[in-house]
Amino acid sequence: MKKLVLLRHGQSQWNLENRFTGWTDVDLTAQGEDEARQAGRLMAQAGLNFDRAFTSYLTRAIKTLNLALETMHQLWIPADKTWRLNEKHYGALQGLNKSQTAQQYGDEQVLLWRRAYDVRPPALAPDDPRHPSQDPRYRGISPTVLPATESLQDCIARLDPYWQNTIVPALQQADQILIAAHGNSLRGIVKILKNIPDDKIVGLNIPTGAPYVFELDEDLHVLKDYYLGDPQDIARRAQAVSEQAKHK
Amino acid sequence: MKKLVLLRHGQSQWNLENRFTGWTDVDLTAQGEDEARQAGRLMAQAGLNFDRAFTSYLTRAIKTLNLALETMHQLWIPADKTWRLNEKHYGALQGLNKSQTAQQYGDEQVLLWRRAYDVRPPALAPDDPRHPSQDPRYRGISPTVLPATESLQDCIARLDPYWQNTIVPALQQADQILIAAHGNSLRGIVKILKNIPDDKIVGLNIPTGAPYVFELDEDLHVLKDYYLGDPQDIARRAQAVSEQAKHK
Repeated sequence: MKKLVLLRHGQSQWNLENRFTGWTDVDLTAQGEDEARQAGRLMAQAGLNFDRAFTSYLTRAIKTLNLALETMHQLWIPADKTWRLNEKHYGALQGLNKSQTAQQYGDEQVLLWRRAYDVRPPALAPDDPRHPSQDPRYRGISPTVLPATESLQDCIARLDPYWQNTIVPALQQADQILIAAHGNSLRGIVKILKNIPDDKIVGLNIPTGAPYVFELDEDLHVLKDYYLGDPQDIARRAQAVSEQAKHK
Repeated sequence: MKKLVLLRHGQSQWNLENRFTGWTDVDLTAQGEDEARQAGRLMAQAGLNFDRAFTSYLTRAIKTLNLALETMHQLWIPADKTWRLNEKHYGALQGLNKSQTAQQYGDEQVLLWRRAYDVRPPALAPDDPRHPSQDPRYRGISPTVLPATESLQDCIARLDPYWQNTIVPALQQADQILIAAHGNSLRGIVKILKNIPDDKIVGLNIPTGAPYVFELDEDLHVLKDYYLGDPQDIARRAQAVSEQAKHK
């Protein structure tokens, strides 16, 4: 039996400030770092020994991976980074306060931008300093595939080739793999793994810092999936995530 | 012009306790972490933008790499880990106090074990819990190449294939590469790069936490090499390293 574990990064500076983050490279807070270490402790207690790991190009996910692996004394495993596991790109909303945006455009519009499967936030202009083509980390990537905004559908569409061409072959060779990433890129992986319909995946709130274990057979069918950790704590975290956008 | 930067990890718990470390996976101290961040600041000030990085399988080198890259906002670059960049294996001396060992065997014998080019410390028995074959991180590596002790010559011999087959091709493609590793594995790379004779390389003390920059032409010949940072501080660190084994 193979195991794939998904780990969503914990609190970042902009989670704390309730701002749309997307591809903005904000750091974890001290609490976010603790969440990563706690996830590492839970995975170590569960006896997980990873063969390799994957993460995004964004510091908050990479640090979550590193802190969790360090806690497990498994920092030495190979870890690949890819922009295709980045968070959904939030376009021109990146940097805006979620509550203020909800006040300005209404809860319903913001909920569509955040949670509708195929609705994109307003796009960034190509010369906007926030556009990925202005960031050296994306210089090796064809500008035609770099997003200026994304719906969840777009995010899953650009993640899918990496899943098929890199993670699936890795899972065929390895027994245990860890992916540290973001709310929406991990939604994409859960959708693919469990074949969840478009209108249902938007309602899935993956809690931060709670390792989400998938037990897979040799053909990578899901035998069982569950979170590690205290169920009440996990429910509380999932609820906190789903309430972030409501204006106060 | 290409740039290769070598970075030796800073103080570890066993440096502090003056014990032979080798392949033992001891952590950095808080001072060692600060050295890594300071190295990151120096490299950022020097305008370095790495295309990729290499490090060993040992936590103190991996954390040095991660802390330096994080300080430079370059944590996203690809980083490969290999046992071939590990510190020289110190055999049965691993874990022993350097001063006590010098008192027991004499300064001269310890200096031979530490600094002679082709003298190996006493080997670990294959069933010793310290033997690499007992450590899951080396399970993918043929036991015939895993060392039970190493001279500097042995260390360079097992590093060389990785240099030739992986780092050289990477340097041919990339402009700037960072290697975070250990006193002896970095000695090996300097020996290869500058074609230093066997009897001279043992006298080279690379200071900890001081980025060592090699400017290379397209054929990877060294045009210039220098440390980043304050020269007095660098000399003090190199001196501290060379005096570690003398008994008090």
